Amino acid sequence: MTHFMRKRRSRDNRKQFLKGTKTRAVIVAQALEIAAAEGLAALTIGRLAKELKMSKSGLFAHFRSKEALELATVELARTVFANHILVPAERGQPGLEKLWNLCDFWLQHIEDHVFRGAYFFAGAFFERGRQRGAVARQIKAAARDWLEALEQAAKEAQKRKEINRDVYADETATELNGLLQGGYWAHLMGQWGALDWAREKVLERLEALATDEVPSTSFKSVKAFQKYLRWKYA
Amino acid sequence: MTHFMRKRRSRDNRKQFLKGTKTRAVIVAQALEIAAAEGLAALTIGRLAKELKMSKSGLFAHFRSKEALELATVELARTVFANHILVPAERGQPGLEKLWNLCDFWLQHIEDHVFRGAYFFAGAFFERGRQRGAVARQIKAAARDWLEALEQAAKEAQKRKEINRDVYADETATELNGLLQGGYWAHLMGQWGALDWAREKVLERLEALATDEVPSTSFKSVKAFQKYLRWKYA
Repeated sequence: MTHFMRKRRSRDNRKQFLKGTKTRAVIVAQALEIAAAEGLAALTIGRLAKELKMSKSGLFAHFRSKEALELATVELARTVFANHILVPAERGQPGLEKLWNLCDFWLQHIEDHVFRGAYFFAGAFFERGRQRGAVARQIKAAARDWLEALEQAAKEAQKRKEINRDVYADETATELNGLLQGGYWAHLMGQWGALDWAREKVLERLEALATDEVPSTSFKSVKAFQKYLRWKYA
Repeated sequence: MTHFMRKRRSRDNRKQFLKGTKTRAVIVAQALEIAAAEGLAALTIGRLAKELKMSKSGLFAHFRSKEALELATVELARTVFANHILVPAERGQPGLEKLWNLCDFWLQHIEDHVFRGAYFFAGAFFERGRQRGAVARQIKAAARDWLEALEQAAKEAQKRKEINRDVYADETATELNGLLQGGYWAHLMGQWGALDWAREKVLERLEALATDEVPSTSFKSVKAFQKYLRWKYA
């Protein structure tokens, strides 16, 4: 084999590898479309092959089992969730502002139809959260990421003396998540303005948690709230 | 055909009909076991046949399609939900007490493992709530039953001057449901005492809604609360 031929082959391999990676990404993106709207169970190799106009055997070359496909789909959903909510919230101020941003971005990701349906992560969590296996673990981990981000932000807010030290950060996380879930329920039931109701409830709750040093009225001076209030009373 | 033979045949038909009804009930009960734990999608005629030691064709005689089976399963789940929460709550006082009972019984049905998993109706609602067809309609109807029961009780409480007239009953329903859902999330994440946290939050919320005529402290004289407080501080 000449040097040239070796080089050529390695370039071909690289091309092949890149093509494979791209195909895989296309498959998982389509799988996420289906699962987000109809649940992971609606995902079959057969249906995916049909929608992507690929052969079943071609799909099998990328995902040797239904579980592998589900796992890749949940991983992508988790990344999308992080990119829309957890990562941007890290960019602002820690503490109170982050707590608000997390809730605001969570509501925003519904308004923006980031996922096609309500399955990730609410439906998936209730459907699979108690099961065993790698897929259930990923789903539970995504739920934990979310609740821990809220809890951490609440703890930071306490350290920064923005909210009372005598509340439990995990309970604050549970309560805020509850308000968001309740708003989402009402939204899915077709109740008009349910997501903004949730924003107001979160705001109200955070004001109630304000320390004496930080009077509840001064909450409105926090940048994120200002933005929200400006939008609301414009 | 003699009179005797006609009579005999009609008795046989009746027996056959009763046997059929019983078999059908056994099938749907098993279907509910599977779906409550793993979701409706985990329900297949093949799996049911295996678990019930029946032939697939025997099952097909009762349910000619996957959709018919899913529908019967959701209908049973809806009945179970009503029997554990909505119906008993109707038996007590209307208004405030009913509002409390609805929340309390809802938490109780989780503690009692009335359903094997978290699918009905939380998971099902998020997975199917936006889809079309008879199954999705039933799931949405169950969610509506629940939210409307809360809303009706809140309206009654307002008529009875137990809670403030200036709150919207539908928002009260959304908020209470949110607290319950938030508690359920935390419970599924393994947070100890999350369901009792939800009880306290509901109580706190109802006290905050109390009218001036009904001072918030007097909430503790309401029969259902008394029962809860007795249990809590026993």
